[in-house]
Amino acid sequence: MGNENTRGRVTIPTDVDVVPETLELLERWGADAIRDCDGTDYPEGLRDVDAKVYSTYYTTRKDNEWAKANPDEIQQMYIMTSFHTAVEEELSIHLMDHLYPDMLKVNSHDDIKRWWEVIDRTTGEVVPTDSWSYSEETGDVTIHGAKAFHDYTVSFLAYIMWDPVHMYNAVVNDWKGVEKQITFDVRQPKTKEFSMKRLRKFIEDNPHVDVIRYTTFFHQFTLIFDELAREKYVDWYGYSASVSPYILEQFEKEVGYKFRPEYIIDQGYMNNQYRIPSKEFKDFQAFQRREVAKLAKEMVDITHEMGKEAMMFLGDHWIGMEPFMDEFKSIGLDAVVGSVGNGSTLRLISDIPNVKYTEGRFLPYFFPDTFHEGGDPVKEAKVNWVTARRAILRKPIDRIGYGGYLKLALEFPEFIDYVESVCKEFRTLYENIKGTTPYCVKTVAVLNSWGKMRAWGNHMVHHALYQKQNYSYAGIVETLSGAPFDVRFISFDDIKTNPAVLDDIDVIINVGGAYTAHSGGAAWADEEIVTAVKRFIYNGGGFIGVGEPTAYQWEGRYFQLASALGVEKENGFNLNTDKYNWEEHDHFIKEDCTKDIDFGEGQKNIFALDGTTVLRQIDKEVQMAVNDFGAGRCVYISGLPYSFENSRLLYRSILWSAHDEGNLHKWFSTNFNVEVHAYVKNGKYCVVNNTYEPQDTTVYRGDGSSFDLHLDANEIIWYEI
Amino acid sequence: MGNENTRGRVTIPTDVDVVPETLELLERWGADAIRDCDGTDYPEGLRDVDAKVYSTYYTTRKDNEWAKANPDEIQQMYIMTSFHTAVEEELSIHLMDHLYPDMLKVNSHDDIKRWWEVIDRTTGEVVPTDSWSYSEETGDVTIHGAKAFHDYTVSFLAYIMWDPVHMYNAVVNDWKGVEKQITFDVRQPKTKEFSMKRLRKFIEDNPHVDVIRYTTFFHQFTLIFDELAREKYVDWYGYSASVSPYILEQFEKEVGYKFRPEYIIDQGYMNNQYRIPSKEFKDFQAFQRREVAKLAKEMVDITHEMGKEAMMFLGDHWIGMEPFMDEFKSIGLDAVVGSVGNGSTLRLISDIPNVKYTEGRFLPYFFPDTFHEGGDPVKEAKVNWVTARRAILRKPIDRIGYGGYLKLALEFPEFIDYVESVCKEFRTLYENIKGTTPYCVKTVAVLNSWGKMRAWGNHMVHHALYQKQNYSYAGIVETLSGAPFDVRFISFDDIKTNPAVLDDIDVIINVGGAYTAHSGGAAWADEEIVTAVKRFIYNGGGFIGVGEPTAYQWEGRYFQLASALGVEKENGFNLNTDKYNWEEHDHFIKEDCTKDIDFGEGQKNIFALDGTTVLRQIDKEVQMAVNDFGAGRCVYISGLPYSFENSRLLYRSILWSAHDEGNLHKWFSTNFNVEVHAYVKNGKYCVVNNTYEPQDTTVYRGDGSSFDLHLDANEIIWYEI
Repeated sequence: MGNENTRGRVTIPTDVDVVPETLELLERWGADAIRDCDGTDYPEGLRDVDAKVYSTYYTTRKDNEWAKANPDEIQQMYIMTSFHTAVEEELSIHLMDHLYPDMLKVNSHDDIKRWWEVIDRTTGEVVPTDSWSYSEETGDVTIHGAKAFHDYTVSFLAYIMWDPVHMYNAVVNDWKGVEKQITFDVRQPKTKEFSMKRLRKFIEDNPHVDVIRYTTFFHQFTLIFDELAREKYVDWYGYSASVSPYILEQFEKEVGYKFRPEYIIDQGYMNNQYRIPSKEFKDFQAFQRREVAKLAKEMVDITHEMGKEAMMFLGDHWIGMEPFMDEFKSIGLDAVVGSVGNGSTLRLISDIPNVKYTEGRFLPYFFPDTFHEGGDPVKEAKVNWVTARRAILRKPIDRIGYGGYLKLALEFPEFIDYVESVCKEFRTLYENIKGTTPYCVKTVAVLNSWGKMRAWGNHMVHHALYQKQNYSYAGIVETLSGAPFDVRFISFDDIKTNPAVLDDIDVIINVGGAYTAHSGGAAWADEEIVTAVKRFIYNGGGFIGVGEPTAYQWEGRYFQLASALGVEKENGFNLNTDKYNWEEHDHFIKEDCTKDIDFGEGQKNIFALDGTTVLRQIDKEVQMAVNDFGAGRCVYISGLPYSFENSRLLYRSILWSAHDEGNLHKWFSTNFNVEVHAYVKNGKYCVVNNTYEPQDTTVYRGDGSSFDLHLDANEIIWYEI
Repeated sequence: MGNENTRGRVTIPTDVDVVPETLELLERWGADAIRDCDGTDYPEGLRDVDAKVYSTYYTTRKDNEWAKANPDEIQQMYIMTSFHTAVEEELSIHLMDHLYPDMLKVNSHDDIKRWWEVIDRTTGEVVPTDSWSYSEETGDVTIHGAKAFHDYTVSFLAYIMWDPVHMYNAVVNDWKGVEKQITFDVRQPKTKEFSMKRLRKFIEDNPHVDVIRYTTFFHQFTLIFDELAREKYVDWYGYSASVSPYILEQFEKEVGYKFRPEYIIDQGYMNNQYRIPSKEFKDFQAFQRREVAKLAKEMVDITHEMGKEAMMFLGDHWIGMEPFMDEFKSIGLDAVVGSVGNGSTLRLISDIPNVKYTEGRFLPYFFPDTFHEGGDPVKEAKVNWVTARRAILRKPIDRIGYGGYLKLALEFPEFIDYVESVCKEFRTLYENIKGTTPYCVKTVAVLNSWGKMRAWGNHMVHHALYQKQNYSYAGIVETLSGAPFDVRFISFDDIKTNPAVLDDIDVIINVGGAYTAHSGGAAWADEEIVTAVKRFIYNGGGFIGVGEPTAYQWEGRYFQLASALGVEKENGFNLNTDKYNWEEHDHFIKEDCTKDIDFGEGQKNIFALDGTTVLRQIDKEVQMAVNDFGAGRCVYISGLPYSFENSRLLYRSILWSAHDEGNLHKWFSTNFNVEVHAYVKNGKYCVVNNTYEPQDTTVYRGDGSSFDLHLDANEIIWYEI
């Protein structure tokens, strides 16, 4: 299948010290694009190479001269101190405690009485501005007339004196003697004018560059280091580093109400994605989307005007650049590239609409943390590729690529060989899939407070990094990223605005912990929302609740959809009620289970209501149950970490809850380690072994006919329909 | 030690078929009182026996003739139906669904529009009374104009047509052909007059009786059976079976606001003790205490007037008869007898003030569930005695006794022998202890929403019965019941009324699940309460939090005392914050641990703040930690089921948090299976082996001197100081 697929769709990194090797790799991997990275330079010797050249472009840093000359336009972020208990009338709080001193500098240049906030966290009241003062000398805010044994915090603005990603790269790579790159704020007037000129100059000076690869347009995600240079706080989706009095005054004008630091600070939770967003934060995000898109468009327009492509690196800059929101289209970007950690992050890139192409940067990054003596980059690459491939087969990215120091990778010839095979496999599958929507068994909607704004990114704190508290929930999204469903992400607001949004959905999934944005909290006490969802189920829809779905203590229920789900949580209030429904039942959903189901962290204290069918309980704590509600069907699962076996469990749950068990044997592999994807329009389908061992299976085609098949480790086999 | 102790302080049951055996047992056990039981009769042949005679007296039942002649004064209870979802304009709810038909009868005699409530549980709104109707024929309430996909419940009054305890006894003992005893309401005018006469007649007719043993004065705790005669709902402390329009109209007059069924129904949670009590429920309880005490006094006065003693059986009737509340004293009862399930229930009896004596009825009850072929009543008796003995040694009951069918017990001669030894041991220890307060190392206050009203009964759903959701918390109270502390139970209201209530306390304990009355919920957002507790700790007090202490999501904290406890719960909102404090440390508190600490259900997702000393974390979930706050010390424990080893852990936690590690070796046994109790005023102390195996230990006296000791299984050894 295809000598035509020997070249293209691959990007490699380079550096001044690996020119001949770069040329060799271009050939072996079939790469058609070359890039530089943070900490590398593009070599003179490759200026005329037959490949597209990407150049990383740092809009907000790499010009300390400018930053130092314009200290008032250095980027800023809101920070909240820790809680301090007053024990006498005066309470002093040192603002820079536990912050890395070179990274941040208190902004006392702007009116601190307007832009800072001292809050009594015992009462939630704002401390009047005449009851506190700030000393430049000590760096302390002192509260006068503090109330004994009340807790206080200070919310303040700080300048970002060392770009946190630059700092991270410097710390990880142990860079010595690098000048700490100060961030400047392109959205402020002087810097904006300067930045547009700077961009033009850069493009003029670098005629060999084809693609300007904007790493961060204007605002970095939130990343703070502590006094020991350890990561202290990270929020991939954080908006707290996008503020300045200049911007906030615009915000006030637009929304027509007075800004409060607390809108960003959010009790110290900083509106992270687990928090149910407040109206004011949603207003702020909308404002940022509009403003950032407008300014990004100016840069993209310059890029185009000067004959170059504009590419954005996804992830370092979410603030206002939300790729699934409407404003994004107006920017006119040619491409988005992002780091692929798993299937979810792949879809986070490949599902982005309104760009000409998407590119996935695969792991491992060519950094010494993996590429050192005794390191096993092949293993990491295999895991990364096989994990992502499931998702690529549902919605392909258009290109793949690698980053880091090429020199390091060259020392691992097996790695070079393995990636060569990946590049070939990618080109083949891209050719077979292109332009089609693969066969979707059902339409599934993940319902939470964020909807499409956090599509595929639900539960992510920082990229695809593991968290004990979220892997049991993130597993659902990961499963969906490579499963044959039309997946949508809808919000409670979507339902409130237009309940008909549920009309063409087969199954709703609500997954997450209680009172988080993922399960929805108070949304479930909203009459319009809860009745719309109950109506949907009652009329025949499917509903899958994972973790603490619909949890909100209200009017005698903890799970607001308890009567539909058939389960409730024992929070102590129901101990008086005898519970007799503990018997486990066989069920269609469990038929492919080979061992005890892995619920991850699972849940404690879940019990089944009368009439519910318990599928699994451990020590009288229900982990899985199903229940009919009207013509609809509900499934409760306590948690479902990603695994091939659990993917099958969710697959069967979706089919069952959609009353479609009868169509199980369509484009289906009996062995759950193997998946089947059909591209009906292109007349192709593939069978793919997701494991590192050979597998045997029976494959069912779309017409229900079947054949037995043996696959080698990782193998993907393509067929004509 | 004492031939003087061969008789007294013991009560035995009898029946018509065991007269000679009763006389023999009186001798062997040294019993000085005889009683009848539900289902037995007092034999003619024992009328002149040389022992006090107790007669169970049933104020509210055993006269169906009266009940049937006065159906309007049959006892009533509030019931809430289950949740019903409206799917069309009319929704019919059958009131008696899932209720045992012979036990309850809908009260449609009184004005249902006034005394019933139909509630839209989706909105919490009351459905107007003209929007629903009740059909006698179908037994349904039908809601007209119901809102689609809203959930509805009906709160209604039902007559108690079969006394639930009588029903329980009938079902357990498989009684055939018994007449179902209808309950009548002594608080209503006709029945009150009748009951006083009936009581006088009973006393007149039974001159051989010395003690009237009131099982239930007027109101049974809540106990409901389902359609299969299985227990459906039980609340030992429930107040829902103490209602009638007659009583509720008095309540309205007293409090000056209109009564709502919801004040009792409480969303279906029925104000069980896990619920933080509402103002209205507290008003209702206070009203019941006053009214019930007044009426009980009338009966007690008649009893006294006719030369008899009045004894109350504790547990079947809590409503208004709260023994730790002030009204109780005014009743003038001579004695309280109660069932001893463990140390906590022992203290629940023995700590009752203002009665002449208390009696513990020990387990097993002589019922066929234990006394059958293959049964092991000795084992049950041993566990019961040894468990209770710890508590008796702190605060003795004045008498012990047994109940049930003596005939059954007589078939187990080893049981008769064992109890004989128990009776002797009890008399000896009573003699040694009497009149003194044993040496108390520290004063400890259990702080929750109930305070002294639920002293020793915290977390109890039904007597001392196990619940997976509470044994990890109840273990604290059980430990305290036999530990050398002055234990108080204080409420948040107590602190609010007078913060000085904390002045003579060494250590506060807050133990329970989030948002329950035991941890306190919103009380921790009350400025006065939280600052009083923080001040107490800061100035040197100890604070021990178990489970989810001080949990209430408010102003950036889940644990409101997080800064004192040094731990916080990860509910998803803090995932962005890096957590580095996981290292476990050795500590005074853990020094006697012989194995992995048993935290019972433990807690998930607890993390330590910076500076906190982690004592135990499992898989990055903190189970135990200590922290300084000002001059005070805090201990966090995720859960602590009762065991000898855990008792020691709590003992050390209390000493450490009170800065009193130096006094560990006072009245102390190095082996935690053995305890030492000192009665300084009486010049005695004892060393007691709580296990069923021999033990070796080193015993420390009050002056720090010590000696080694070997004890036989269960042995108690008395010494002079």
